[in-house]
Amino acid sequence: MGTKTPGSVKRSVFTSPSEVEQYFYEALREADLAKLMQTWADDDDIVCIHPNGERLVGAQAIQVSWKEILEKGPLSIETRTPVIFHNGMTVIHTLIEKHYFATTHGQKEVLCYVTNIFHKNRTGWHLILHHASLAPADVILNEMHISSNILLH
Amino acid sequence: MGTKTPGSVKRSVFTSPSEVEQYFYEALREADLAKLMQTWADDDDIVCIHPNGERLVGAQAIQVSWKEILEKGPLSIETRTPVIFHNGMTVIHTLIEKHYFATTHGQKEVLCYVTNIFHKNRTGWHLILHHASLAPADVILNEMHISSNILLH
Repeated sequence: MGTKTPGSVKRSVFTSPSEVEQYFYEALREADLAKLMQTWADDDDIVCIHPNGERLVGAQAIQVSWKEILEKGPLSIETRTPVIFHNGMTVIHTLIEKHYFATTHGQKEVLCYVTNIFHKNRTGWHLILHHASLAPADVILNEMHISSNILLH
Repeated sequence: MGTKTPGSVKRSVFTSPSEVEQYFYEALREADLAKLMQTWADDDDIVCIHPNGERLVGAQAIQVSWKEILEKGPLSIETRTPVIFHNGMTVIHTLIEKHYFATTHGQKEVLCYVTNIFHKNRTGWHLILHHASLAPADVILNEMHISSNILLH
């Protein structure tokens, strides 16, 4: 996967959507903006929607946004129960993100639903869309305990 | 596009993602559940996330959810400022939805960000994912006035 040449910023080459996604959440845990931006396609049409945030379009706007977020510190996020749709060069994951925050009242958890979309081109797989929104805690906690990807209602 | 044979429910054949999307919002405006469900792929892995709602997976769960919503009446929604990503058989739209509600205090408006994903197979184009989340009104109102799809930050 990704390699770095000392003194230069060499862009990582990801061989699967899962590799991109793993690197993305690692970068958040490490508050490493340069690493994070390697997971995104370098494109004017990529989209990032943060929970309760505005829609950001294009690599530059997305980088500015994550810079602000990561300057406040690392993000500790676990992902659960993916639903995955494969179609050749485009792969879609919907996940539940479990965010952990240290507060003066102890650890706090927030759940989000996320749609991550990955696209492959000649430079490998990259993220082209990340849409995250707050999820209702009561419903999701049940969902997180099931083993199947498919919910029964 | 779609045709209906009297006495039978003939599934519509959509020839483009835009046609599916137009039919989807028409069905919401008409509170027509059968019409709405024709826009969705008939698949166990399709995903629908309502604003502040749980993640629904599979046509059956999605139909139950929309039935509950549409039994309360039609949804008047305008869509704006799409950002579109094409990749062969998969097309991704991110939109701003403007919802209009009649209240005792007059008309109320709510803005949502939406990711709609369409997939083409031998039965034509269908919706495979609809992820909607509430958007911050102050930021979005600015965005809705720009003519370009690309935001400058």
